[in-house]
Amino acid sequence: MQPGPRDDHRDDPAPIEPSGGPSIGPSIGAVAVIFTSRRTDLDDDGYAAMADRMDELARRQPGYLGIESARGADRLGITVSYWAGDDAARAWKQVADHLGAQRLGRERWYESYSVVVATITRAYDWSRP
Amino acid sequence: MQPGPRDDHRDDPAPIEPSGGPSIGPSIGAVAVIFTSRRTDLDDDGYAAMADRMDELARRQPGYLGIESARGADRLGITVSYWAGDDAARAWKQVADHLGAQRLGRERWYESYSVVVATITRAYDWSRP
Repeated sequence: MQPGPRDDHRDDPAPIEPSGGPSIGPSIGAVAVIFTSRRTDLDDDGYAAMADRMDELARRQPGYLGIESARGADRLGITVSYWAGDDAARAWKQVADHLGAQRLGRERWYESYSVVVATITRAYDWSRP
Repeated sequence: MQPGPRDDHRDDPAPIEPSGGPSIGPSIGAVAVIFTSRRTDLDDDGYAAMADRMDELARRQPGYLGIESARGADRLGITVSYWAGDDAARAWKQVADHLGAQRLGRERWYESYSVVVATITRAYDWSRP
């Protein structure tokens, strides 16, 4: 898990005790936004450039805790972003450049997607000793 | 999102209203288990066979709602499984064959992993019209 900067958000959650591995970014009470998408076979380059831009933009938002992405050869991708609270997650959805990316996603890049927002209740991690 | 069977679990959550797309599996109050892992470069075949077995086994557990996985060329993978409640998620972790797979994962297949458990507060989806 990539550690992210912590802000001084009023809902700033308590840190999770790491279980022997490296400290993980998200904390109990933080919010995970699970974005699952199926890519079209169009415009791989444009998509990759926008994905990088949105990744950089997310990292600069208040309440950002971390982001992770994976996409397989079947073009199914999962991106999980972590936020200090629900208002930080909602604010990120409404950032103007992000709204533009969402529109292009529906026009061009995605066959389908789902967004699941969830509040973290526990977490642990492990690394090879 | 793959729809999963619903059980008659006492914590059975209310269904999410789909937003014009296909109905999605998980529901408000359901539990998402986000498993993020970095694969070693060992035993791809053994890992793939076990991943398939665990996927099938998860689908037969009480309270199972759905599962999705993606792993990119950088060997970072994200699997999200959805459960009717926290006790269903905890029970899956303790299934004997799954415990065996977790042990082999630490011995052989993973450089590192994290598990984040979160309660779903909202969800929506979209499909190309």
